[in-house]
Amino acid sequence: MIITNPFDSDLNGDKLREECGIFGIWGAEGTAAAMVALGLHALQHRGQEAAGITSWDGTMFHTHRAMGHVAGNFDRDDVIRALPGDAACGHVRYSTTGETALRNVQPLFAELYSGGFAVSHNGNISNAAKLRNELVRRGSIFQSTSDTETIIHLVAMSSYRTLLDRFIDALKQLEGAYSLVCMTPEGMLICRDPLGIRPLVMGRLGESYIFASETVALDVCGAEFIRHIDPGELVIVSDKGLRSIRPFAEVPPRPCVFEHVYFSRPDSIVDGSSVYSVRKAIGAQLAIEDPVEADIVIPVPDSGVPAAIGYAQQSGIPFELGIIRSHYVGRTFIQPGDKVRHLGVKLKHNANRALIKGKRIILIDDSIVRGTTSVKIVQMMRDAGATEVHMRIASPPTRHSCYYGVDTPERAKLLAAQMTVQEMARHIDADSLAFVSVDGMYKALGESGRKESCPQYCDACFTGDYPTRLTDQEDVAPADQLSLLAERVPA
Amino acid sequence: MIITNPFDSDLNGDKLREECGIFGIWGAEGTAAAMVALGLHALQHRGQEAAGITSWDGTMFHTHRAMGHVAGNFDRDDVIRALPGDAACGHVRYSTTGETALRNVQPLFAELYSGGFAVSHNGNISNAAKLRNELVRRGSIFQSTSDTETIIHLVAMSSYRTLLDRFIDALKQLEGAYSLVCMTPEGMLICRDPLGIRPLVMGRLGESYIFASETVALDVCGAEFIRHIDPGELVIVSDKGLRSIRPFAEVPPRPCVFEHVYFSRPDSIVDGSSVYSVRKAIGAQLAIEDPVEADIVIPVPDSGVPAAIGYAQQSGIPFELGIIRSHYVGRTFIQPGDKVRHLGVKLKHNANRALIKGKRIILIDDSIVRGTTSVKIVQMMRDAGATEVHMRIASPPTRHSCYYGVDTPERAKLLAAQMTVQEMARHIDADSLAFVSVDGMYKALGESGRKESCPQYCDACFTGDYPTRLTDQEDVAPADQLSLLAERVPA
Amino acid sequence: MIITNPFDSDLNGDKLREECGIFGIWGAEGTAAAMVALGLHALQHRGQEAAGITSWDGTMFHTHRAMGHVAGNFDRDDVIRALPGDAACGHVRYSTTGETALRNVQPLFAELYSGGFAVSHNGNISNAAKLRNELVRRGSIFQSTSDTETIIHLVAMSSYRTLLDRFIDALKQLEGAYSLVCMTPEGMLICRDPLGIRPLVMGRLGESYIFASETVALDVCGAEFIRHIDPGELVIVSDKGLRSIRPFAEVPPRPCVFEHVYFSRPDSIVDGSSVYSVRKAIGAQLAIEDPVEADIVIPVPDSGVPAAIGYAQQSGIPFELGIIRSHYVGRTFIQPGDKVRHLGVKLKHNANRALIKGKRIILIDDSIVRGTTSVKIVQMMRDAGATEVHMRIASPPTRHSCYYGVDTPERAKLLAAQMTVQEMARHIDADSLAFVSVDGMYKALGESGRKESCPQYCDACFTGDYPTRLTDQEDVAPADQLSLLAERVPA
Amino acid sequence: MIITNPFDSDLNGDKLREECGIFGIWGAEGTAAAMVALGLHALQHRGQEAAGITSWDGTMFHTHRAMGHVAGNFDRDDVIRALPGDAACGHVRYSTTGETALRNVQPLFAELYSGGFAVSHNGNISNAAKLRNELVRRGSIFQSTSDTETIIHLVAMSSYRTLLDRFIDALKQLEGAYSLVCMTPEGMLICRDPLGIRPLVMGRLGESYIFASETVALDVCGAEFIRHIDPGELVIVSDKGLRSIRPFAEVPPRPCVFEHVYFSRPDSIVDGSSVYSVRKAIGAQLAIEDPVEADIVIPVPDSGVPAAIGYAQQSGIPFELGIIRSHYVGRTFIQPGDKVRHLGVKLKHNANRALIKGKRIILIDDSIVRGTTSVKIVQMMRDAGATEVHMRIASPPTRHSCYYGVDTPERAKLLAAQMTVQEMARHIDADSLAFVSVDGMYKALGESGRKESCPQYCDACFTGDYPTRLTDQEDVAPADQLSLLAERVPA
Repeated sequence: MIITNPFDSDLNGDKLREECGIFGIWGAEGTAAAMVALGLHALQHRGQEAAGITSWDGTMFHTHRAMGHVAGNFDRDDVIRALPGDAACGHVRYSTTGETALRNVQPLFAELYSGGFAVSHNGNISNAAKLRNELVRRGSIFQSTSDTETIIHLVAMSSYRTLLDRFIDALKQLEGAYSLVCMTPEGMLICRDPLGIRPLVMGRLGESYIFASETVALDVCGAEFIRHIDPGELVIVSDKGLRSIRPFAEVPPRPCVFEHVYFSRPDSIVDGSSVYSVRKAIGAQLAIEDPVEADIVIPVPDSGVPAAIGYAQQSGIPFELGIIRSHYVGRTFIQPGDKVRHLGVKLKHNANRALIKGKRIILIDDSIVRGTTSVKIVQMMRDAGATEVHMRIASPPTRHSCYYGVDTPERAKLLAAQMTVQEMARHIDADSLAFVSVDGMYKALGESGRKESCPQYCDACFTGDYPTRLTDQEDVAPADQLSLLAERVPA
Repeated sequence: MIITNPFDSDLNGDKLREECGIFGIWGAEGTAAAMVALGLHALQHRGQEAAGITSWDGTMFHTHRAMGHVAGNFDRDDVIRALPGDAACGHVRYSTTGETALRNVQPLFAELYSGGFAVSHNGNISNAAKLRNELVRRGSIFQSTSDTETIIHLVAMSSYRTLLDRFIDALKQLEGAYSLVCMTPEGMLICRDPLGIRPLVMGRLGESYIFASETVALDVCGAEFIRHIDPGELVIVSDKGLRSIRPFAEVPPRPCVFEHVYFSRPDSIVDGSSVYSVRKAIGAQLAIEDPVEADIVIPVPDSGVPAAIGYAQQSGIPFELGIIRSHYVGRTFIQPGDKVRHLGVKLKHNANRALIKGKRIILIDDSIVRGTTSVKIVQMMRDAGATEVHMRIASPPTRHSCYYGVDTPERAKLLAAQMTVQEMARHIDADSLAFVSVDGMYKALGESGRKESCPQYCDACFTGDYPTRLTDQEDVAPADQLSLLAERVPA
Repeated sequence: MIITNPFDSDLNGDKLREECGIFGIWGAEGTAAAMVALGLHALQHRGQEAAGITSWDGTMFHTHRAMGHVAGNFDRDDVIRALPGDAACGHVRYSTTGETALRNVQPLFAELYSGGFAVSHNGNISNAAKLRNELVRRGSIFQSTSDTETIIHLVAMSSYRTLLDRFIDALKQLEGAYSLVCMTPEGMLICRDPLGIRPLVMGRLGESYIFASETVALDVCGAEFIRHIDPGELVIVSDKGLRSIRPFAEVPPRPCVFEHVYFSRPDSIVDGSSVYSVRKAIGAQLAIEDPVEADIVIPVPDSGVPAAIGYAQQSGIPFELGIIRSHYVGRTFIQPGDKVRHLGVKLKHNANRALIKGKRIILIDDSIVRGTTSVKIVQMMRDAGATEVHMRIASPPTRHSCYYGVDTPERAKLLAAQMTVQEMARHIDADSLAFVSVDGMYKALGESGRKESCPQYCDACFTGDYPTRLTDQEDVAPADQLSLLAERVPA
Repeated sequence: MIITNPFDSDLNGDKLREECGIFGIWGAEGTAAAMVALGLHALQHRGQEAAGITSWDGTMFHTHRAMGHVAGNFDRDDVIRALPGDAACGHVRYSTTGETALRNVQPLFAELYSGGFAVSHNGNISNAAKLRNELVRRGSIFQSTSDTETIIHLVAMSSYRTLLDRFIDALKQLEGAYSLVCMTPEGMLICRDPLGIRPLVMGRLGESYIFASETVALDVCGAEFIRHIDPGELVIVSDKGLRSIRPFAEVPPRPCVFEHVYFSRPDSIVDGSSVYSVRKAIGAQLAIEDPVEADIVIPVPDSGVPAAIGYAQQSGIPFELGIIRSHYVGRTFIQPGDKVRHLGVKLKHNANRALIKGKRIILIDDSIVRGTTSVKIVQMMRDAGATEVHMRIASPPTRHSCYYGVDTPERAKLLAAQMTVQEMARHIDADSLAFVSVDGMYKALGESGRKESCPQYCDACFTGDYPTRLTDQEDVAPADQLSLLAERVPA
């Protein structure tokens, strides 16, 4: 089977990757799984490696998980028919913790003493390893290597009496980022961590409630967007209706700024702002902060397009398609044969030579991670006859790893952690290179700038300012294990 | 996918089914998984639905499970290469408890606090449901619906300090039949329940120890047969050698008599007797107890052949192949199309018309369960021109269900539970019908007869005399479950 | 298996489809098949249903064909390794004539008396049925239902002596459109029909010659573009070099104009013009011919983008992304379940609501075929809050079917064949609708207008002016067939 | 995919292989394909590599072919439903000529000028290569490498007027062995070569006629056996009924004697004799010709069983199962891993040690080809403790290759072509070895002996007396081929 991750080659190969998208619906009158499938398809950009749906038909839970895309797996009538019921939750994933195996694909499900319990989780628990070690010592047997399973065992092992108390007991032991949709026979539990690091929205379609990572998942179902789930909020939906509680002490929220810069779809509304508008505004900000004389503005497709339009409108330099993207990007073409592999061929993108030849160009991209594709794309422009290549990046330099559910390379591989901007310009062979400033990015988000004392967003990947403790990054003492051959105590 | 169970149609469709075969090897110098594959192939008659192998390479455990036969799944180089190590255990199964899904296929594996723990189990725990309910209440999360998983959670939750004590603590809570091969990083734990209901033998090949359900699994590996594991014995094998302990109070053993009558292969030695010889002796006993004048003795292939040879030699009536079995019985041919399905066609067996026409025949079969195929086979003989059909059965009438790892229909479907022998003869349209007597069967096994006060075998399927309590057959009070919506106790 | 045709739903569902792309390479020193795979991947937009490659290793021909995309089938090392040799040809197809079965997938191959003969064909033979009928009467046995096979049998049955003469003899009997790459043990035969209806270009990479439908297939290999194959030209490439002959009487060429309007990739150079530039010029021409006052210009992605940029630059109205296309268009999501199927959900495209709300918009699309998606897209814009929707189409109204290798609906389903432009505007609920004029299209192509006496292009889909006879569209008298039961003539 | 040929390992690995079984039915009222599937399943022993069925529904032909067994491929409702109609023919094959590829799997089908034409062929055309060469020169394009396709092209290219005449014209050019079932829209053509080398029988089921290689295929359908098709007979079945013609000059028939000795199933009636009875008679003849003192008679399962029963009854020495065959022979277990592969393990058969130990045994097998398995089986008996091993073979020494549709090794690999019987005995390490005499074999068939002047059977594999010319074994001059680059003659 060919792995079809659109991110692992060509111009998009050098991006940070969001790791999960989640979706839940309650009260859908028989169409729950089909609606989840639609929603997950709209969230596919948040995780292309695997997907899963669990439904509840009033008597039984039904689960289907598959490696690969939602389309091709969850658009088959036989699959959807095997997921009956009015309630369902689902998940798309790119692995963070946990090897990529079917048993790690969410929703995770367990038969607890309270009945079935399904969990869809976006984020990353930064003390999961420590919690797991303690649970195994107490007799828990883990089915997966996913950090999410820790949450379920904490619920199962809690000494509280009601399920809701057990759930809150579990949440309070967690550290890190989590947006959760949990399904039980009696209702759904929807929750966002106290800092609100990962997004979560609520919508309504007829009598049913929908919860999803982004508003585009509501759009695809024809649902109405109601509001965001607040940081630290826990919503309980059942046939008796919806209620909201706040089990945590309140802290200033720190939602992830990279959702605006790259992860979320441009047609989503995240925390009240149009992603497309924010990206255009960052492009315009770049034109103000780092202007340059040139003939045409060219986006690196597709994620650089809104910022390029913003840059072109602000600067008055024409916007043109200088890089043509193949229609078939959903499928990665693995270059066959060693001889061919090293030709440096351009499979997904091709220079529009007739346009570029003899021109001074401004290239707009959203970020630089390892810098590998920036090198290739500048080269592609020069090969096509560009006389000057100026690169403008619609985010600040990415200098730190993320521990909250985003796949980042280790720090040593982040170009901006190793070089100054001038060194980077030389490295990628650009005539000039500029990043939007941190304050410029905050301005595009409608702020006057970053509040240093109490930043409005989690921007740790740019600043290194992590909003939580990172327990599992600290040293863990090895556990003393039981031995088979140790002296036997007579029974 | 076509299900290829050789037992579900034609003449073999009406048999009791053994549910599992197990195999383990320690010290095999890199060939462990390959040897397990060979051994499981030789035990294939004990379970055709699924198979699995877990290996231990000194650092990691590796598991592969598959629905279907050993051949076609575990004879592939890529599969065996992915199961490296000097130690491995395996399992073939026909489901007893637990729906047939891959997660129920053994060996079951868990990461305990003591490290990895793999289990292959033949038998059935007759109080598994009760134990499971209690474990879930305490916070255990089950991965399968198999009774075997209960054993692992009992070990994980035990409050003893060493793994060996935890294992014995778990065993002492079990009721029913179990032959077990468990693998840990430090060694193997091999054990047979106190009554020794299911078989288990030990062999040696070079430096390695082998444990298997039947001696044929030793033969196929070229291993030397050492001895049977005793009822109630627990063997521990590690790189330090082999030691044996007896953790249970001793009771008189009751091994399953049906292993001799039908389950085990004729070339196996079970509890010191050649299965082939015992079956011939039962056939000879039938000729003594229930003689009849006839022209030829015909076995119902293949399981009736040894008894038919015994009957023919004792009676002096010629042994002939009156029913020809297709060479391709490994694959069930599902009769396509409704019109064809009801023609009563004979796909696996065909009458040898030229031989049978005008003859008085004695048909020898090993057992009658529902009686459905006996009806067909007598009809097949009459259609081919037999003038008289006398049926002789090489076991007593099967009148009771088994709860120790054998798939029996509910009692109401056992022909002998509903009818007298004379009524059965009329039902299957035989000119005469006779079963070997219970004492005759014990005589063929070398006893002078059944000791009523303390029977030498478990013969509950013939006599209804069960050697253990049957807890899960008694009424279980419904558990009180936790509620999500119950009044919340403030945290 | 889910069919993954990006054209069969959403906004791209209502397009004409090019039916084939071809590629051949001679002299590639062991990398021939890998280069063909790359080339076909770049030509994937010309045929998504199936692909095939045939290679010649100096001794044997090797063929692999597969339903589905090039990626996922021809990027596997095992597949490419099984296609050794210095020469290879390939094909991507969307079926024209011939049911979609693997035996219809090209290259077609036959063992002729002269040795192996492989054919990749783009186009359609408009008298194939008549030729086939005659060949079968003479004893030919066809393997496929493809019109292309007719060419091979004509070669096999020809009474000329050399293969080249037989090939020319075959070509002269053909009517319609054909660009051909044929491979024999001694060399390649490359040919374009006298009118040059379908494109064909020649490139060079090191010592090897490459032939392909479009220049993008040369770009992806890093090959140099040399020139177009001329209409009516036959090129012979062998280890002795390249020679070109003109076996046909010369006629004025009529290349397909729709290659510029929609089929070819924007980064291709077709017949000397940049496709991107032509499309921008058509957009500018539309702004001149049919101006309208509005706030933003929005392309229907992706094919409408160049014309929209041209329109925006000419009119001074800002270009904006008002419709967001999912990243995952390569895989069609089949809407599961009847209930969901009729919701009118938008799976591949979503309105950028925050942008559109309250705006007067100009939508730019490349063509209208059935009009089904135009209805949906105008509705989508109105639902998102557009106050006026003006639609501008970058081609003239499509009023006639194509018989030269393009999949068109029957005439009755072409919207422009049934309605005036005003009726169409009402039908799709646009505030205004305009198409570029035929002469406007010719102007964008650098002409002063269409020469009515001798048109420069085949524009039959717009004008109904077909450049060849359409034999198979005329009535064919039923053949008299041989009968088995006819009176037998003594042998 | 694991190849599941039961003949390629263990005790059955060293046999001659019949290469085809054929089956046809006309007038089956909608169940034709299902009946063919049943019949092919009963003929599975005649070809395990591939199977195919073609049906005719009054309007269209439908074909399904598959590598592998009938069960698992042709017992699926979807497959049978896709083969509608009242008439169908089918084929199981083990390849003779023609690589093993799906396009070689029969029935072969062609659209001739007379309409569709499907062919199922058992046998081998011994001048096929010569005929093919000539046909290609005349313009025929072959789809397969099968000798059977030659027949179809001869029909297509024939200059006679009716299909029947064309068919007879084709047959008259053939040399070798052929039993044919051909299906056309108007009826079936069933034919056996003038010598009747391969078998063919006719049966009746209700209103339908059935034609098959063996009577067991009639039994499985519940059909009545009518008669054998005569050597040189051509039967035409249509809705108008059945007629028989004799297009060839009559010659004395020479049916294959090996059908009795090994190929046919014991429950078949071949040319008027019960195969089981003939094999028992050969066993008895062996006991008369080559008696020996011993304790038990043991068959090599399964094909040696009837002869062993005959030998035991004639000699009075008890018949016993000394070799136990696994129940799962339908699936070959490929021994995984090199280390294991060379252990000489016995996967399909195991010695019944408890029986054999200390005994003098007579082993009965049906034939010795290469002798490789005889070596293993004698060794297996000695390992199990046999004190003497006497081998008796129920056929004469196999000394010559077959060219009539049986897969034989080249002569140099036939043990009996290289050694005397005494040398063979030493080679396989038997205490004594004897084969039945040629005359003894003829006696068991009811003859007084072989008529040397005019033998009653084809026994070329024993005697080297081939009943036809062997054209393709003679030298064929290389054809002069057409060249592409030859000087071109102006068109």
